[in-house]
Amino acid sequence: MQKIVLIGAGNVASHLFTAFQKTETVHIIQVYNRSNGALKHFEKKVATTTSLAALKSADIYIVAVSDAAVRNVITQINPTNGLIVHTSGSVPLLNSSNRNGVFYPLQTFSKQTSVNFSDIPICIEATTSKDLETLRTLGKSISHKIFSISTEQRKKLHLAAVFACNFTNHLYALAEKICTENNVPFETLYALITETARKAQTTSPKNVQTGPAVRSDSETIAAHLQQLTTPKLKEIYTLLTQSIQAENESKL
Amino acid sequence: MQKIVLIGAGNVASHLFTAFQKTETVHIIQVYNRSNGALKHFEKKVATTTSLAALKSADIYIVAVSDAAVRNVITQINPTNGLIVHTSGSVPLLNSSNRNGVFYPLQTFSKQTSVNFSDIPICIEATTSKDLETLRTLGKSISHKIFSISTEQRKKLHLAAVFACNFTNHLYALAEKICTENNVPFETLYALITETARKAQTTSPKNVQTGPAVRSDSETIAAHLQQLTTPKLKEIYTLLTQSIQAENESKL
Repeated sequence: MQKIVLIGAGNVASHLFTAFQKTETVHIIQVYNRSNGALKHFEKKVATTTSLAALKSADIYIVAVSDAAVRNVITQINPTNGLIVHTSGSVPLLNSSNRNGVFYPLQTFSKQTSVNFSDIPICIEATTSKDLETLRTLGKSISHKIFSISTEQRKKLHLAAVFACNFTNHLYALAEKICTENNVPFETLYALITETARKAQTTSPKNVQTGPAVRSDSETIAAHLQQLTTPKLKEIYTLLTQSIQAENESKL
Repeated sequence: MQKIVLIGAGNVASHLFTAFQKTETVHIIQVYNRSNGALKHFEKKVATTTSLAALKSADIYIVAVSDAAVRNVITQINPTNGLIVHTSGSVPLLNSSNRNGVFYPLQTFSKQTSVNFSDIPICIEATTSKDLETLRTLGKSISHKIFSISTEQRKKLHLAAVFACNFTNHLYALAEKICTENNVPFETLYALITETARKAQTTSPKNVQTGPAVRSDSETIAAHLQQLTTPKLKEIYTLLTQSIQAENESKL
C-alpha cells in the first residue's frame, strides 16, 4: 500500500483523488490546500489541512498546484523521508536535498467532465531508479500507459502538444467561423473531426494526409484562397499548404 | 421502398452499398462500374453492368465516382424518370433536363475501415422540394444527421473541412515530428488529441482555447520559438499564435 498526501485541491488534484480512491494499492491519507474553501469537497472522505507544517508522514507527496506555485510549495514541504513529486508538464525535475520526482498526467482536465484515467499517459521522472519504480507502481494503479520522460523530453512534449492540441483547437475555431458566417452548422464537421483524430492514432498522420495541398490541386487551392475573407486566414491557408507540400515532397 | 441504381464501385459506393443493404426501405437493384474488376465484389449480391446504356429503371441513381468524372458520367445517364444524385462535396448541383440532386456523406472513407453511417452527416440538395424530401428519406434510412445544404454552402463547408481536418492532420504530423526528433513516443499525445476533438463537439472551440497564446504567456512562447528547429515551424507557431490572440482579443 502506497501512502499519499495530496497537495492541492484543483482540477488535477480532484481527478487524481477520485482515481486513487478506486484503487486497492494507493491510500490517500491527507489533502492539503492553502484555503479551506476547496477542501470542503474532501473533508468527509479524508483528513485535510491548510498548513504545510502539519503534513502527515507519507510515502509520496503529490504536489498538484498551479505551475507558478510548484517550486514555492515544494520548498516548504519537509517530509521525513517521502518522495515529493509535482504534476506539471512545464516545471523541471527539482533538485533539492529531498527526494524529488514528476508525476505528470498528460490530459486536459475540466471540472465538469469525469475522467477515465486508464488511457491517460502518465509521464514519470525521478532522480533514482528506485523512486522511478515507485512512481511506475503508483501510475499503474490508475493507468496502463506509463512513460519515463526526462525534463528535456517533457519540454519538447509540451511544445508538440501546442501543435497537436492548442493550434488544432484554433483550426477548429476557424472552421467554425467559416461555417457560421455561411449559415452552415459546424456540426456537419463533427464526424470528420473525430475520424481525423482517430486515424492519427492508428497510423502516422503524415501517411494519411489528404486534401488539396498534398494532391497539389492548385485549382482548388486558388478557389479556396479566393473565398477566404481576411488576410490572416489567407496567410494561414498559404503557410500550412506550403508546409504540407514541403513535408510530403518525397511523395510528390 | 426506394429502388436504387448505384454508379461506381469505389470506397464511397462500397460503403453506401453495405449501409443500404441493412435497411428495409432501400433496395439496390443494380451496380454499374466502367470496368469489371471492381464489380467482382458485388456480383453475388446484385445485378451489375459495365454499360451506362444498360441501366435499369430506378427511383434514384447514385453517382459515386471521382469528382473529375461526375459530370461526364451524369450526362451519359438517360433515366426514364429517376432522380440523379452525385456524392461529391466539391461538384455543384448539376442543371440539366433531368432531375438532379446531391447526396454527400461528409466523411473520409478508407477501404479497410468499416463505417457506422448513423453519425455521418449527409448533405442533401435538389431542385424541387419533392426531390429533397426523397433524398431526406433515403438519407434517414442510414443516418440520423441529414442537412439540407446548398451548392454555395457546400463550397464553404469544403473550405472549412480543410482547416478542421487536412490542416489539423498536418499539425498532428508536425507534433509527431517534434516527438520523434526528441525520442518521445507520439502515443503520449493520443489522449489529448482525442479529448481536444471531443471537446470541440460539446462547446464552441473558441470558448475552450487553451495554451500559451490565449494566456499571452510571452515567456513560454519565446521558449517554444527558441526550441523549434526550422524557420517554417517558427513561422507556423508565430502565425497561429497571432491568430489565436486576434480571435480572442475581446477576452484578453
